[in-house]
Amino acid sequence: MRAIFYPESLVVLGVSAKPENMGKNIIANLQQFGYRGKIYAIGRERGEVFGVQIYSAVEELPQGIDLAVFLTPAPLVPELLDRCGRKGIKWAVIESAGFSEFSEEGRALEDRLLEVARRWEIRFVGPNCLSIINLENGLALPFVLLSPTAARPGKISVVSQSGGVALTYANLLSVSGLGVNKIVSIGNKLDLDEIDYLEYLLADPGTELIILYLEGIEDGRRLMELARTARKPILLHKAHRGTASSAIARSHTAALANDDRVVSAAALQSGLIRVPDFRAAVNCAKALFLPPVRGNRLAVIARTGGHAVIAADGAEATGFELYRFPQAFLSKVQGLFRAKVIKPTNPLDLGDLFDLRLYAWITEECLRMAEVDAVLLVHTYAANTEARETRELVTRVKALSHRYGKPVALTVLTEREELARLEQELDWPFFLGIEDALGALAAARDYYLRRRSLEGVRVPTGANPRTDGRISELLRNRAGGALPLDESLTLLELLGIPTAPWVKVRTAREALQAAEHLGYPLAAKVISPELLHKTEFGGLALDITDGSQLAQACEALLAGVRQRLPQARIEGFLLQRMASGGEELILGGRRERAFGPAVLLGLGGIYAELLAKTAVRVTPLTRADAEQMIAESGLDRLIAGFRGRRPLDKESLVEAILKVSQLLIEQPRIAELDINPLLLREEGILALDARILLA
Amino acid sequence: MRAIFYPESLVVLGVSAKPENMGKNIIANLQQFGYRGKIYAIGRERGEVFGVQIYSAVEELPQGIDLAVFLTPAPLVPELLDRCGRKGIKWAVIESAGFSEFSEEGRALEDRLLEVARRWEIRFVGPNCLSIINLENGLALPFVLLSPTAARPGKISVVSQSGGVALTYANLLSVSGLGVNKIVSIGNKLDLDEIDYLEYLLADPGTELIILYLEGIEDGRRLMELARTARKPILLHKAHRGTASSAIARSHTAALANDDRVVSAAALQSGLIRVPDFRAAVNCAKALFLPPVRGNRLAVIARTGGHAVIAADGAEATGFELYRFPQAFLSKVQGLFRAKVIKPTNPLDLGDLFDLRLYAWITEECLRMAEVDAVLLVHTYAANTEARETRELVTRVKALSHRYGKPVALTVLTEREELARLEQELDWPFFLGIEDALGALAAARDYYLRRRSLEGVRVPTGANPRTDGRISELLRNRAGGALPLDESLTLLELLGIPTAPWVKVRTAREALQAAEHLGYPLAAKVISPELLHKTEFGGLALDITDGSQLAQACEALLAGVRQRLPQARIEGFLLQRMASGGEELILGGRRERAFGPAVLLGLGGIYAELLAKTAVRVTPLTRADAEQMIAESGLDRLIAGFRGRRPLDKESLVEAILKVSQLLIEQPRIAELDINPLLLREEGILALDARILLA
Repeated sequence: MRAIFYPESLVVLGVSAKPENMGKNIIANLQQFGYRGKIYAIGRERGEVFGVQIYSAVEELPQGIDLAVFLTPAPLVPELLDRCGRKGIKWAVIESAGFSEFSEEGRALEDRLLEVARRWEIRFVGPNCLSIINLENGLALPFVLLSPTAARPGKISVVSQSGGVALTYANLLSVSGLGVNKIVSIGNKLDLDEIDYLEYLLADPGTELIILYLEGIEDGRRLMELARTARKPILLHKAHRGTASSAIARSHTAALANDDRVVSAAALQSGLIRVPDFRAAVNCAKALFLPPVRGNRLAVIARTGGHAVIAADGAEATGFELYRFPQAFLSKVQGLFRAKVIKPTNPLDLGDLFDLRLYAWITEECLRMAEVDAVLLVHTYAANTEARETRELVTRVKALSHRYGKPVALTVLTEREELARLEQELDWPFFLGIEDALGALAAARDYYLRRRSLEGVRVPTGANPRTDGRISELLRNRAGGALPLDESLTLLELLGIPTAPWVKVRTAREALQAAEHLGYPLAAKVISPELLHKTEFGGLALDITDGSQLAQACEALLAGVRQRLPQARIEGFLLQRMASGGEELILGGRRERAFGPAVLLGLGGIYAELLAKTAVRVTPLTRADAEQMIAESGLDRLIAGFRGRRPLDKESLVEAILKVSQLLIEQPRIAELDINPLLLREEGILALDARILLA
Repeated sequence: MRAIFYPESLVVLGVSAKPENMGKNIIANLQQFGYRGKIYAIGRERGEVFGVQIYSAVEELPQGIDLAVFLTPAPLVPELLDRCGRKGIKWAVIESAGFSEFSEEGRALEDRLLEVARRWEIRFVGPNCLSIINLENGLALPFVLLSPTAARPGKISVVSQSGGVALTYANLLSVSGLGVNKIVSIGNKLDLDEIDYLEYLLADPGTELIILYLEGIEDGRRLMELARTARKPILLHKAHRGTASSAIARSHTAALANDDRVVSAAALQSGLIRVPDFRAAVNCAKALFLPPVRGNRLAVIARTGGHAVIAADGAEATGFELYRFPQAFLSKVQGLFRAKVIKPTNPLDLGDLFDLRLYAWITEECLRMAEVDAVLLVHTYAANTEARETRELVTRVKALSHRYGKPVALTVLTEREELARLEQELDWPFFLGIEDALGALAAARDYYLRRRSLEGVRVPTGANPRTDGRISELLRNRAGGALPLDESLTLLELLGIPTAPWVKVRTAREALQAAEHLGYPLAAKVISPELLHKTEFGGLALDITDGSQLAQACEALLAGVRQRLPQARIEGFLLQRMASGGEELILGGRRERAFGPAVLLGLGGIYAELLAKTAVRVTPLTRADAEQMIAESGLDRLIAGFRGRRPLDKESLVEAILKVSQLLIEQPRIAELDINPLLLREEGILALDARILLA
């Protein structure tokens, strides 16, 4: 794959000298960014552009060119690629649009394209992409004319499912002084996809951090696997999050939607850093180029009280603790003050201190404290008074941050022109806002924390005990669709999740007999594949305390169901002992298109939907994952025993979560599973209802 | 107050020619910003600085100077102000620090300062402030040397409880092309406060929008009143939100905390626009200088598919609806495309359209549609190729936006230097990010919507019927602290909020007799002022179904309370009929330091604290306020009848909210009130427990 980023020769197809031709922009960009390899051009008509000769046929090219770059109309691409194959070209970049993102004809073109590529063993980028920029060798292949300042060299590489987004990142990273190393716009990713580029860039010596912009994820499992073992931070900017963007994402890069909550869970579990937007991505990259944030204790140094107050609010909002400075230190700081009219604390308001050299001394004192994990320095100044002193301060702070191996996030509030000069002169990340700096520090802190917790934790699929073999038997030869309620309950029992005692009967008469054995009070449910949300359709009767109530209830249930769902197939009744006490939860599972099975946990009953606070994780799960889910869904306080109530049996819930995870892994035919309510009690759990959908 | 912003002469006290003197910076700033009034200076030693003569005594000054500016040590200020008073000076700006924000001695100094000021009828800004900048007349009074580019003229005025924050705003607003009109740093606001400045600026012809940065609010009611009747937008940037900032805010400007949720509610109810940070404030100001956003339907035009996808996500997140363009329009747009490989939709991905003049045409077509309320145009370009065309596009879009009276939010993604040029050349707000633009459009939309709903709505304190006069009787001569439970319940009944039938008894024996009349099942509670959260201390027994259970329960309750709270004064038992059905809510009230009584509503029981989703409003409340509270606290769906349940009695809840609001207004001695649980049923409400704290 090195040939794609470091070709020694390349040919651009679709070039002409006409003003409206965009192919020649590629050649202009290559020359402007100083690409030193051999450039060939192919067009309908012979000619010359920017000193490069235009050939009219692939056959005129020499053998052994490294890379073919396409900007011809889409219908011509397969045929031309075939000719390139004959010429021994093994790598291609297909920038042309008009493929599956556009029409059915385009989809057929993609099939032909793949077929030709496979025949000649050609691997390619795109189609429908803005292609590649490599600032190490000046390989700048986009078909839009780039500004010379649009991309400055650095250590960050960008993999983007949008050319426009790739260029925006190039610009933002260059402006901020971070710079870029390689950029690849992956388009429809018909052949090479984000996984291929990631693998390459993770091994690429020039790349120290990767930003991944995606509109659709296909192989989520592989992405997680790569992230989990990566030695470089990967920022995931995933767009196409809701339903409003479906049409445009489809038309843009033929991207299909992912379940956004599963994407977030997968990022969390694999150490991918999910960022919501461009600004957060750039800020986060800045924080990751500082020494690592190893903990939660922050020192804040500000030049004005207002910035200090805002920083204190921000620290609280991002979960940082303001370390309580020792009195001796505070006294020393106050000793430096000019008018001595400010009492120092953390945040330190240095509004009474005008010598910037003392700021560096104070920063060092903070870094020296073992209890301080990170420093936020909010600096504000006017360019016409303290430009030189500021440069000295930054240089000193940079050295100190490295020496003590702790981050100093530096927020600089000054005139824009001065800030631009500062960013270009000094190789150190500057934050433009207090909240920016704190948000980025917090993201870095969480990343390092997660990396530590992931280290050495391999989660093999078989981590949890295999489920009972009888489950496979139960599911064998089952049609797709909802599993009958009695079988769903049986499956849970086989899985080791106890259910409230129940019995299935065919008629009301059978029900009366069975109830004597089961005991009252009990609940009666109509068994019918058409009744999934029973409370909405009246298929459920609760708190039945004797035979006459039961007889009445059976009659009423049948009448109700027949009235509302005349077509429902009624198989009988399920009688179940009423259970009470404990807390109603929902425990479920789904399969996500790209990430496979995922488990969901939350408060159950009607509150589940009203006050949705659920936790999602991708399988397989560790015990730690299960425990985090319980905390994340707000159940920890309930479980601990709220307002004098006795604690609930957390361990049995953890076990149930792991069992559901394992079930979904072993039984790929289970498309959806909902245990709702699952009663969590002082001793053990009890499933009261279950819905299982088979693929 | 005009004399403070437009003095024709002023004197600076605390000036010397020494290098470390900061008083002379004031004179330098005045000269740099072109102030044309007469400047006098007072210092310990005679001399001259920047051509201004330094006098050594106030007595040497002529009569009739408009304004005195203090930067002397704090202890000297009262005496010098007294001398200024003798000289007929009526207005002062006290920049010196070292007052109540610093020490008890400083607080005493403030008392003397006020006394002197009152004697001479002097009004003053500060103390402990960075003072005033007025760009209309070059009045630049800060004691730090300003950059000439730090503040450019515009239509926004800033009132800030922090000098550093004021200067940051000056810089940010100037950089963005918005500019500033007047800036006042209010410091400890010992005399003049934000209300005074607001009143002045609301009437000030040069000011079209006000940004208010506060760390503590004293007269919240007056602030709300001003905002409600303001004809100019007021952005509220309120810091000191949590507990982490308490110490630093106290030390910075002697600011006391406000209940942050009440601040948000007050902003919502009065049409103040609450902004979380600098960036949101500046973005919001940009959106407010566009024509008003009258609705929710958005058209998005982007140059690349990726930006379009991100914009669609952002539109959904900010509550905008992407208007479905008519097919005829979409066909026309596609007809303009070059390669015709993109299918247009909303967002419009114009990646296939390279003539910027057509962008203006498409923008106009969108604005022309009656169903489109706002347009987001995401423009990206390279300075070396489309600088001129971009300027033409912006000029055209600006004219169109004005002509159609609809906002076009223009996000520009390009090189930084180019963006800076654009912002200085063209008088039109540019957004730097897609999310920035959408967040600001949404804030503007919500503001205009709220303004419309506030128009004509005066909420007189007596809007709701007065409460029963017997409530005052009941509270008369009551000691402070918790009201006994039986009296709390009686108060609710007088208020017209029904309670579950109850009776108060002194002994277990009395309880048995009373229970026969009351009827089972019932609940028994220990009456004791020390028992507030009964479930935590075992002072409550539920579901008692007969006399023997009741006897046991009374015994157990007494034992339990005596064991856990040996010092509790037990006054007897309260027996109450068990009530069930419906939903448990919490309805309460508090008094906020600056905003007075506020009402709180949420889901009750243990879920209230676990899944806190409550709504807060400042009294008095309108019916619309009460209905919004119900929606905001997530109760609407519960009330509508969730999953086949019958709807609950919303009207009775609205009435109860209004009654609590009225009670808090009429009875200032009620410091806190909690009805928890308040049972909302299919017919009516029922209070099961109440806690009332008297001041």
